Amino acid sequence: MVKITDVTLRDGHQSLMATRLRTEDMIPILEKMDEVGFYSLEVWGGATFDACIRYLNEDPWERLRIIRKRVQNTPLKMLLRGQNLVGYRHYPDDIVEKFIEKAYENGIEIFRIFDALNDIRNMEFSIKVAKRLGAHVQGDICYTVSPVHTIDQFVELAKKLEELGCDSIGIKDMAGLLLPYDAKELIKRLKEEVSLPIHLHSHCTSGIAPFTFMTAIEAGVDVVDCAISPLAMGASHPPVESVVAALKGTPYDTKLDLELLNEIREYFDKVREKYKYLIDPIAERIDTRILVYQIPGGMLSNLVSQLKEQGALDKLQEVLEEIPRVRADLGYPPLVTPTSQIVGTQAVMNVLTGERYKIITNEVINYIKGLYGRPPAPISKELMKRALEEGEKPITCRPADLLEPEYEKFKKEAEEKGIVSKEEDILTYALYPHVALKFLRGELKPEPIPEEKEVSKFLE
Amino acid sequence: MVKITDVTLRDGHQSLMATRLRTEDMIPILEKMDEVGFYSLEVWGGATFDACIRYLNEDPWERLRIIRKRVQNTPLKMLLRGQNLVGYRHYPDDIVEKFIEKAYENGIEIFRIFDALNDIRNMEFSIKVAKRLGAHVQGDICYTVSPVHTIDQFVELAKKLEELGCDSIGIKDMAGLLLPYDAKELIKRLKEEVSLPIHLHSHCTSGIAPFTFMTAIEAGVDVVDCAISPLAMGASHPPVESVVAALKGTPYDTKLDLELLNEIREYFDKVREKYKYLIDPIAERIDTRILVYQIPGGMLSNLVSQLKEQGALDKLQEVLEEIPRVRADLGYPPLVTPTSQIVGTQAVMNVLTGERYKIITNEVINYIKGLYGRPPAPISKELMKRALEEGEKPITCRPADLLEPEYEKFKKEAEEKGIVSKEEDILTYALYPHVALKFLRGELKPEPIPEEKEVSKFLE
Ligand SMILES: [Co+2]
Ligand SMILES: [Co+2]
Repeated sequence: MVKITDVTLRDGHQSLMATRLRTEDMIPILEKMDEVGFYSLEVWGGATFDACIRYLNEDPWERLRIIRKRVQNTPLKMLLRGQNLVGYRHYPDDIVEKFIEKAYENGIEIFRIFDALNDIRNMEFSIKVAKRLGAHVQGDICYTVSPVHTIDQFVELAKKLEELGCDSIGIKDMAGLLLPYDAKELIKRLKEEVSLPIHLHSHCTSGIAPFTFMTAIEAGVDVVDCAISPLAMGASHPPVESVVAALKGTPYDTKLDLELLNEIREYFDKVREKYKYLIDPIAERIDTRILVYQIPGGMLSNLVSQLKEQGALDKLQEVLEEIPRVRADLGYPPLVTPTSQIVGTQAVMNVLTGERYKIITNEVINYIKGLYGRPPAPISKELMKRALEEGEKPITCRPADLLEPEYEKFKKEAEEKGIVSKEEDILTYALYPHVALKFLRGELKPEPIPEEKEVSKFLE
Repeated sequence: MVKITDVTLRDGHQSLMATRLRTEDMIPILEKMDEVGFYSLEVWGGATFDACIRYLNEDPWERLRIIRKRVQNTPLKMLLRGQNLVGYRHYPDDIVEKFIEKAYENGIEIFRIFDALNDIRNMEFSIKVAKRLGAHVQGDICYTVSPVHTIDQFVELAKKLEELGCDSIGIKDMAGLLLPYDAKELIKRLKEEVSLPIHLHSHCTSGIAPFTFMTAIEAGVDVVDCAISPLAMGASHPPVESVVAALKGTPYDTKLDLELLNEIREYFDKVREKYKYLIDPIAERIDTRILVYQIPGGMLSNLVSQLKEQGALDKLQEVLEEIPRVRADLGYPPLVTPTSQIVGTQAVMNVLTGERYKIITNEVINYIKGLYGRPPAPISKELMKRALEEGEKPITCRPADLLEPEYEKFKKEAEEKGIVSKEEDILTYALYPHVALKFLRGELKPEPIPEEKEVSKFLE
């Protein structure tokens, strides 16, 4: 029997409509989704925290409580970027601890934890905290393809995650790069060498995920991540209903009710209609170029925006070709938040200035200093020399070991500013001090839902 | 090694944009498509013949010659409805013979022949003619699911097609009903009991086809039908590029060039943009209701149109539920042209009149008389009594045996009307006398390509 985690309310709208789904449009369907019998519902974390505040003027903590209240039977899951939590930098352990405690307290039962570099030191602390609370911890492997990544390494990482007490292993194929027979091999090995359930999270960006689901299922994967069909496919995930229907009557039967799923589909058809002008055609289309350039769906539209702002959209192809080179220089990081932004922005710089690394971004410098963790392979010597001061050396410890505790400082500041009406507000402020201040002061407005389509950035 | 038939220029646009792709938008990409090394290109037949004339004011014979001139290396394929050719009724043998001869002469090398009832008597004559000419004949099994259809029967049909001299067997899953493990079983059986290559043609309407492709490939299918990604998915087919990428480096490797396919994709991105307002959202969406109601993609939008015209769109659900009942009454025909229209229209009648079979359409009466062939199971006795005159009995012979030769009659008529400038015009006239007359007289105009979207019929 294969189980399904529905990720519609987190990654589904994050992948297809820029994370803009509002809580009010989740509420009417939550109880029905709870009835289905999903293994879990991924509803929080990733980009949703930031987007809630920044674009929707919504309190993500409040959203979580609202969901929890209506979802009484299905475990709620969140995506947590290890030491980065739901932000883009490393936070000190006291913030990490407090954040996970509050997420748990407000209803998260399964923490899906990853690190963009697969550096387990960046995951250890959050795993420990979540385990102490009694949560289910899923340790994720960021799947990528490079000359230095091997199945052996992924299996090693999974074993270490098992040793740390994780309850399940997730294969996080954020860019849809995992090919059917590589998945089969990887899952077979994981099933042999790790005694935890294996979850598969993939995206349909290249159109390959459905093929891969089939071989993964035959190789014994335990849980697959899907989205309800109106928010499935393209940069999102394989559709729940199709997976359920495809496996009906087989030993893999999910036992979920297609009639009930159909009612949920009808609801999300309307939601999709409401938000349709937020759906970028790029996110909907299948693009096997990602297999060459390794660019996750979200990254491509970011690049297009960046280039457009600079009036340099004609350089897109050059940038696409520069990305794998920058990635190689940086020791082949998997491309996922925040490494996708770090690599993408540097590649844009390299192309626009006409000279590679003429300008090196602060993020790349910090990356080279080891402040994001240990890259999968050595960084280009030449680039390192160019980026660091004479005699400067990258750190070798866990990045967060260099960080002072910050919680009390942020607490004091936030209280002085009079923006704390619950403890969670301090965390919101600690994570995004600038936006949170405006948000908590009530100075933000939700952006309107567009009523007509911006001309596709890509097709211009 | 798995081979691919590209069906973009026939079923791709037929499934997604109402068969409206113009020859002028095919021409610029034909030579590149020819370079890819597809097993074949399906470019003609099915609904394209009718649509060419009726909506585009284009001569389908001329289209075929244009394509052939630019596609020198890849075999061209057409879909032929057996004794129905590319029309909706049975034609006498002399018309069938002439039509196939002319199609062959103008460049078709592979004839994909099916009968909506899987009644081999309706396929025999066209198979014989195409074989005599030296063409490759693919005998198709219309795949469907019903209490009377079994894998044994499909295998029996394939064996008979082999005996008739077919060069390959096609599994025609027009509604996307074929589940992964049923496909595996069917293909395994076919590979064991028939010594011909097996082709799989499926639609993504329910989102299941990609899963099914994977098990079909592992079961040894020889050729799969795909469309270039901008005209793939939804009611159309799995994307060529994704299949190619998914199988790269495996024993099933298609050996096709992803770079070249990407250039073709870019071309069809623009084509899709040009025709975007012709793409019905219904055709794009995944809908597992078809597994319940067995309705092929095209049929659903037809139903919606029919109901809308009568101001009865609120009856859609009732009609959807009536369809399987009518289908059962009629002995479970597979739903494909023309049976899908026959069953659909009767179901609409049954709902709108408020009494089942109060009105029985002429097509249903003819169907019951056996004029479309032998139904898979006995027709409901009650319905038969209601539909036939006292003492009247259905025919038991091949329907076309009752038809007089017609070619000379149409030839004479067409010549008298002065509309014959080539022999093929006589066939066009014989197939669609009414529209062809206007077309051949130059009285038709191409319908404009819409420049804005009709509000979705479905979502209103
Ligand atoms: Co994801
Ligand atoms: Co088809």
